[in-house]
Amino acid sequence: MNIDLKQFIRDVPDFPKKGIVFKDITTLLKNPDALKLTLNILYDKVKDMKIDKVVGIEARGFIFGAMLAEKLNAGFVPARKPGKLPAAVTKQSYELEYGTDTIEIHKDAISKGDRVLLHDDLLATGGTAKAACELIEKLGGNLVQTLFIIELDFLNGREKLKNYKVDSLINYSSE
Amino acid sequence: MNIDLKQFIRDVPDFPKKGIVFKDITTLLKNPDALKLTLNILYDKVKDMKIDKVVGIEARGFIFGAMLAEKLNAGFVPARKPGKLPAAVTKQSYELEYGTDTIEIHKDAISKGDRVLLHDDLLATGGTAKAACELIEKLGGNLVQTLFIIELDFLNGREKLKNYKVDSLINYSSE
Repeated sequence: MNIDLKQFIRDVPDFPKKGIVFKDITTLLKNPDALKLTLNILYDKVKDMKIDKVVGIEARGFIFGAMLAEKLNAGFVPARKPGKLPAAVTKQSYELEYGTDTIEIHKDAISKGDRVLLHDDLLATGGTAKAACELIEKLGGNLVQTLFIIELDFLNGREKLKNYKVDSLINYSSE
Repeated sequence: MNIDLKQFIRDVPDFPKKGIVFKDITTLLKNPDALKLTLNILYDKVKDMKIDKVVGIEARGFIFGAMLAEKLNAGFVPARKPGKLPAAVTKQSYELEYGTDTIEIHKDAISKGDRVLLHDDLLATGGTAKAACELIEKLGGNLVQTLFIIELDFLNGREKLKNYKVDSLINYSSE
């Protein structure tokens, strides 16, 4: 890999709140070459895993999640915030810094034994990703791999996902 | 076209509220053949339009919007609900049945003269889509086409988008 994908990521200071440096992938998405390159690198990491379903976490996880599903000849499954999916769902709650949140997947979206890839754009503390992993297993899926574009190493999300395989393209060791 | 895509769309009665029949695309998304077929039909409709940017409307419009962008060698631009995009945005408000809503696009996401395709999964009343079209033009984009998977003809969204080119794959003439 001769091209550093990091150059396409924009740092936005104080978003969503003061003191946080947000890693913005929209600058990568709007560049056709960077978009294609990112997809190809993600794809190469998982292409031999015989993935049946790619689960993408709302909303930014839908972007490369869907592209990956299509390229892998897999189905795409959205993991969504409460109340967004219209049919019967299974839920998983998880703790936030203050309070809890919940994600949902349609009960019929994953079949028993499906080989599942979980994707989100960013691995931060790993709370949402871990809840999604547990949800996939609750539905009978075989969670083969979790795959992120950006990983914020200093937030130790990988520790929270220690029961799962974790991979990412772009690592930040400090803010 | 020998395969009727309509068979992959699930009707969910009384969602999001009583009396509404929701057209659920997750049953299409989870089927790898239906996913690929849908993408290919969408792609064939716009492949000769020299599209520079595909704008997808949050959140379901990210799914095929991103796949289309990649296949067209275009960039992908998310149109989002207020407060979700981290950098400087341009906004457009639009009227709902009760009250108003707003969508945002990053100011630097579209360059003057960019040939833009707008995508969402569903054309209903057309309020959000029209606001997105106006936003794209405000940013200097040349809105070449709007493209939806499902169109609810009886809600007359096409009338609201009469200044733009509109196409869709699956039409419902009544609930």
